[in-house]
Amino acid sequence: MKKIKIGLLGFGTVGQGVWKILNSNMDEIISKCGYEIEIKKILVKDINKKRCVDVPKEILTTNSDDIFYDEEIKIIVELIGGAHPAKEYIIKAAECKKHIVTANKLVVASFADEIFKAVNENNVMIYYEASVGGGIPIIKGINESLTANKIKEITGIVNGTTNYILTKMTDEGLEFEEALKQAQNLGYAEADPTSDVEGFDAVYKLAIMASLSFNTSVDINSIYREGIGRIKAVDIEYAKRFGYVIKLLAIAKEEDNLELRVHPAMVEKNHPIANVGDSFNAIFIKGNAVGDLLLCGRGAGDLPTGSAVVSDIISIIRNNFDVPYNFNYEVNSSKMPIKQSKEFISKYYIRLDVKDQAGVLGQIANIFGQHNISILSVTQDVFAEHKVNLVFVTHDAKYGNIVDSLEKIKTLNSVNGIENVIRIYEFN
Amino acid sequence: MKKIKIGLLGFGTVGQGVWKILNSNMDEIISKCGYEIEIKKILVKDINKKRCVDVPKEILTTNSDDIFYDEEIKIIVELIGGAHPAKEYIIKAAECKKHIVTANKLVVASFADEIFKAVNENNVMIYYEASVGGGIPIIKGINESLTANKIKEITGIVNGTTNYILTKMTDEGLEFEEALKQAQNLGYAEADPTSDVEGFDAVYKLAIMASLSFNTSVDINSIYREGIGRIKAVDIEYAKRFGYVIKLLAIAKEEDNLELRVHPAMVEKNHPIANVGDSFNAIFIKGNAVGDLLLCGRGAGDLPTGSAVVSDIISIIRNNFDVPYNFNYEVNSSKMPIKQSKEFISKYYIRLDVKDQAGVLGQIANIFGQHNISILSVTQDVFAEHKVNLVFVTHDAKYGNIVDSLEKIKTLNSVNGIENVIRIYEFN
Repeated sequence: MKKIKIGLLGFGTVGQGVWKILNSNMDEIISKCGYEIEIKKILVKDINKKRCVDVPKEILTTNSDDIFYDEEIKIIVELIGGAHPAKEYIIKAAECKKHIVTANKLVVASFADEIFKAVNENNVMIYYEASVGGGIPIIKGINESLTANKIKEITGIVNGTTNYILTKMTDEGLEFEEALKQAQNLGYAEADPTSDVEGFDAVYKLAIMASLSFNTSVDINSIYREGIGRIKAVDIEYAKRFGYVIKLLAIAKEEDNLELRVHPAMVEKNHPIANVGDSFNAIFIKGNAVGDLLLCGRGAGDLPTGSAVVSDIISIIRNNFDVPYNFNYEVNSSKMPIKQSKEFISKYYIRLDVKDQAGVLGQIANIFGQHNISILSVTQDVFAEHKVNLVFVTHDAKYGNIVDSLEKIKTLNSVNGIENVIRIYEFN
Repeated sequence: MKKIKIGLLGFGTVGQGVWKILNSNMDEIISKCGYEIEIKKILVKDINKKRCVDVPKEILTTNSDDIFYDEEIKIIVELIGGAHPAKEYIIKAAECKKHIVTANKLVVASFADEIFKAVNENNVMIYYEASVGGGIPIIKGINESLTANKIKEITGIVNGTTNYILTKMTDEGLEFEEALKQAQNLGYAEADPTSDVEGFDAVYKLAIMASLSFNTSVDINSIYREGIGRIKAVDIEYAKRFGYVIKLLAIAKEEDNLELRVHPAMVEKNHPIANVGDSFNAIFIKGNAVGDLLLCGRGAGDLPTGSAVVSDIISIIRNNFDVPYNFNYEVNSSKMPIKQSKEFISKYYIRLDVKDQAGVLGQIANIFGQHNISILSVTQDVFAEHKVNLVFVTHDAKYGNIVDSLEKIKTLNSVNGIENVIRIYEFN
């Protein structure tokens, strides 16, 4: 049997998933690529650390040069995560004429230009399916299956941790803090959950998907971002009452210019994406030929992410890994203009805590009217003595107008506070 | 700009979709493959026929040799449909050293062995994404994105016509015949709807997906098949009452041996697939690494299917269309053993028309008991004088036992008829 040797940088959850898959599925893999795949070396921090899988010590190394300068190693798999030295390792791998597979969303989102330049100059391939949506074939989907299309929109649930938390809140009526604790206990959320909960993780993934879909170079800092920390059980309840489910969405769509945003949103409870619960991810794509497409699956975990990594390795092997690679993606130096957040248009759910007194509704409605915001529905519930939840659902409105009107509304004597503002997202 | 010339065989709905996409999306296509794609010749039956798109007459021909023997044409796209001469054309294209793209599920499902042999012997590529699920990237999904997996199950809604009919019946309470008529008026169903309604179309698609997923050669005649013609509005009503939605499913799963079946089934209303309505398709895949994956999209139509065809053309171009192709799929001469239908296990919904008299339920329940069928629920509704719908939902039972018990039940004096038997499908 012909054999191809690879090196891993890092051996955490995903690395061990790759190890398990290569051990259990080698017959299938050989039938798909004609080669046996052997992990020759793995870069680790601590050779003696206890691990879930049984790996011969002699293939572990703490010296990355053992991998970069091994002539037999044709493919390097970067799984250390984080910005540095992952980025430098990827570029060095290219310079050493190794093909690259990575699961690193942060690096691909932040340093795409440098990385693709190095890869193209050195005539090697880079695959990064695992960087977005775990085992969901979204990168190959965009890059290889939807190439006939002008993509108009790509919107998804791309963070499993927040989807797990929101699902728990929806199904069990939990508050955010309780659901987060459960997610942490199950290993779905990190001890410091900021990257997931505040939407940074989703921002990296959106940047990658949008760059590929719209042939543009997306700056992660140009993406509007809101996390889910402000969502209360009561908001989830109202969403249900109005026929919605709250999800953290990552949205990229072309409307005049490019609209890029990550925020919680209410979606219609009958839309397929609304029923994608637990730690699943789902990505909706609209192409001008294919129409609407939805891909759902496990967005994280050792085996789902390992599935994407190993399938990428197989793609490299099948793409003639030892002849010069003939097709280079262009490095997108072009930048599409990005829409300002104040121009975002959607329906809004606005929950106010107001005093239970005459005239409140009129005052607030007037202010909305002055800002060109038309009201679809008002719901009022007493929740404590003299205190009322006043919930507005607006028609389509500009975010700038919403912000301006709420600035005024919160100065009203009768208003105790703006409790929450959540967009309602309509797939169309 | 470098140019690649292609020939189309057939110019119906999909062919015209391909034409439209090449006209509207050429910039994107060039950026994805580095070539301009030109349709040099199109084989048609009647050059003067009126068409929806404006094609110069000089590129139309009624002589297939104008395409097969044109040295400039590198790729032939077969879109005439049907078994013959489509199969012979595909083989001839391979012999003429043309790469092939086809949307023909019947040919790929029925003659895979011969076609892949011709393709491999002549060192050309064949792509057939459009043969299953229209624009949904299911073939590339299995062949390229899930190559790290042992696939355990692939189950889907793969026929848009029946999904449209069932959706209409569910949403509007229509009977089958009315919904079929609407589908025909909208062009979703053919004048002779047999292939869709009786499940043949789904059988072809399942054969293709199962062959790829399980590395086996599936004989279309080995697939168990039931259509949707027997579903009544009242069955849809009961499904709703029990928390289900009725879908025509195509199911392939490995459990000891290979289980292959196409039939209507009740699926839980909260499963994402239950909310895939209208003429959409949805395919659920379970891999031992990736876990559960669901792909949904438009399963038919000029542009969605054209999207798959044009993306396949781009894949051929990117795979070095003018150097010998290095990776051949094995022709699967192996045949996995197929499970007999009497061994199929599932829950069953059984609706009987019985006389409204004492003792009926006991008699029937006894017969089920004798056949090892355990009852989960019984519902009884009077629908006419002295006539009762008696609806059983069983626990998991073998189909053979269901058939045997119903043979006995229908001989009972108190039973007017076995009105329907529908499987309940649980994704797990």
